[in-house]
Amino acid sequence: MDDVAIVGVGQSKFSRKCGITIKELIFEAFREAMEGLDITNADIDSSIICSSLYDSQRSAEGPIAEYLGLNPQPTFLVENACAASSTGLRTAWAFIKSGLYNIVTIIGIEKMSGQSSREVAEMMGRAYDVTWESSFGLTMPGGYAMHAQAHMAEYGTTEEQLAKVRVKNSYYSVKNKKAAFQKALTLQEVLESMPVSSPLKMLDCCANADGASCMILAGKDTAKKITKAPVWIAGLGSGSNTGIGRRDSFTSFICAKKAAAEAYKMAGVGPDDIDVAEVHDCFTIAEIIACEDLGFAKPGEGPRLVEEKGTYLEGKIPVNLDGGLLCKGHPVGATGGSQLRTIVKQLRGEGGEIQVKDAKIGLAHNIGGIGHYANVTILRR
Amino acid sequence: MDDVAIVGVGQSKFSRKCGITIKELIFEAFREAMEGLDITNADIDSSIICSSLYDSQRSAEGPIAEYLGLNPQPTFLVENACAASSTGLRTAWAFIKSGLYNIVTIIGIEKMSGQSSREVAEMMGRAYDVTWESSFGLTMPGGYAMHAQAHMAEYGTTEEQLAKVRVKNSYYSVKNKKAAFQKALTLQEVLESMPVSSPLKMLDCCANADGASCMILAGKDTAKKITKAPVWIAGLGSGSNTGIGRRDSFTSFICAKKAAAEAYKMAGVGPDDIDVAEVHDCFTIAEIIACEDLGFAKPGEGPRLVEEKGTYLEGKIPVNLDGGLLCKGHPVGATGGSQLRTIVKQLRGEGGEIQVKDAKIGLAHNIGGIGHYANVTILRR
Repeated sequence: MDDVAIVGVGQSKFSRKCGITIKELIFEAFREAMEGLDITNADIDSSIICSSLYDSQRSAEGPIAEYLGLNPQPTFLVENACAASSTGLRTAWAFIKSGLYNIVTIIGIEKMSGQSSREVAEMMGRAYDVTWESSFGLTMPGGYAMHAQAHMAEYGTTEEQLAKVRVKNSYYSVKNKKAAFQKALTLQEVLESMPVSSPLKMLDCCANADGASCMILAGKDTAKKITKAPVWIAGLGSGSNTGIGRRDSFTSFICAKKAAAEAYKMAGVGPDDIDVAEVHDCFTIAEIIACEDLGFAKPGEGPRLVEEKGTYLEGKIPVNLDGGLLCKGHPVGATGGSQLRTIVKQLRGEGGEIQVKDAKIGLAHNIGGIGHYANVTILRR
Repeated sequence: MDDVAIVGVGQSKFSRKCGITIKELIFEAFREAMEGLDITNADIDSSIICSSLYDSQRSAEGPIAEYLGLNPQPTFLVENACAASSTGLRTAWAFIKSGLYNIVTIIGIEKMSGQSSREVAEMMGRAYDVTWESSFGLTMPGGYAMHAQAHMAEYGTTEEQLAKVRVKNSYYSVKNKKAAFQKALTLQEVLESMPVSSPLKMLDCCANADGASCMILAGKDTAKKITKAPVWIAGLGSGSNTGIGRRDSFTSFICAKKAAAEAYKMAGVGPDDIDVAEVHDCFTIAEIIACEDLGFAKPGEGPRLVEEKGTYLEGKIPVNLDGGLLCKGHPVGATGGSQLRTIVKQLRGEGGEIQVKDAKIGLAHNIGGIGHYANVTILRR
């Protein structure tokens, strides 16, 4: 299935407040993705902008395509909560695989600093069902806290184990200059941070951020011509979930399990074949559930995996070596592209201090909402 | 290229104020699209929601997929201003043609009555560049009025000629029970309606509306199995344009000309082969420009085409026989799907009073913004 490759990846610095426009922020990511490619803007057949538009600009695809010099090629926006840019990747893959387009760019963007924290929380709340969920006060930390409580009740997971996810990710974040937070944290610091929604504390939660990501995809023959380091899209999987009120389980996400099964099947590999992974750690509990949903650990054994350092660089399955959402910050629409950029760099051998030795197969797991949407993407060098 | 078919189409009643939720509105369209198909909801591999979300619900794909019983299949939202649902169609086509999915539903939705007219105008304004366009007061009627002025200056087009577009579309609207406005208007009524942005008057403009549309697409073999009346997607074209400030021409849209050229090429047909068309008449001038951009008339001769009744049912190229946006109302994200539904029904011979005799090839032309985005779709029975 190696018919479509990622030929370029880029990311802006993620930060709590960028102080520039979304167009300028995107240009940082686009420029990096275009570096070294033997193409011009006119060769890009379509752009796909991925965002939940927390900024004041609506229909941002038009102004963005114009700013990047991508007219008159088609452009449109994909929204899928926090999973937007991996959904954009799947869409671009289909455009190329179908033969309609040859080169497509996927741009993830979110600028959340233009709104107050209260406004962002309100806008984010309206991403769940406004009749049955957000109107009763459901928030993102609240939803994940319910999953943490369920995991603790069913498997005896502890707050210390949750905190160890943040300790790991913060340990690696100091090596990522594009992360919003680059400070190694101690277990004590995480455990003593301000309560948010029990058992989750401030440092169990990722932060809203400003940031952009960019991927450029090309069909097989073109990919081989325009770059020396194509990374192939080997597996794609995707699923959705009902709202919180109608779920049977709070210790896993059915959409992620469906997505993982599809991606593994398409790529012809299993969890043990994955050399390096990025998973959606919007909260510490989310990384633990992700490791279980992906088959890196059996149900209930996710906490032990991080505790025994199985998800560290030297472990059996290194996870979130770029600091994850917890330390990079989480600019909603840009996150999936940032995860995939990290995997692409690993497979190209450009991981630097966090390089997994001889990484051949990588995986990115991107969740939208409180497990409402999931995409799993498997890449191969 | 007849590899993907539209197997089902549906539309809710379009109205100024629906009084129901977006989920209920969508169900009207989805139910009609599913009628007579030999499938269940579980056979639909993915849903694509197309909307600019004027409603309070953000990330509407989740609540909608749940309401329609489409979990755990993937769902996401496509935004492309007024061109969203034809962009959704192109995306679904690619998913099926690529082999990733077999059956996909595209749902267009907009509920604009939940906001005041002032709020809608403000939200719509933010769809153009917030730095360079909307901040200086550009509105949708203002932008199209500039194009009307340019057409009048360059070709001598008259206000009477513009009004004749509305007279035609209103004449046919009385046959469309799903249109918001079903009243035949006289030339005098249009010309004497309230000035909005010179030369455009109230009845030269379409109205915001509440409405939903739905299409169901399937791959070749499946399509032949599940319906007796597949309509094939023969041609797809798409383009974008810069903002108003950087355009060379105000008498045509380059994005629409690019989209038309691509769609004709892919389908292997030309303007003279089209038996019936739906074009994006958000304003009377827009239908005239569309007819020229599509090659139904030479540049500057669009006004004469409608004047000589060439776009009437008995004319050389019947256009907007369902009343068009001008009479149906324009629920942004739903409009493209409504246009395609009309073409599908024509090609199935289900046009009723507006049936074009022996229609074999139909075309839908869907614009987003003030000519910012364009999709042209050619269907064949």
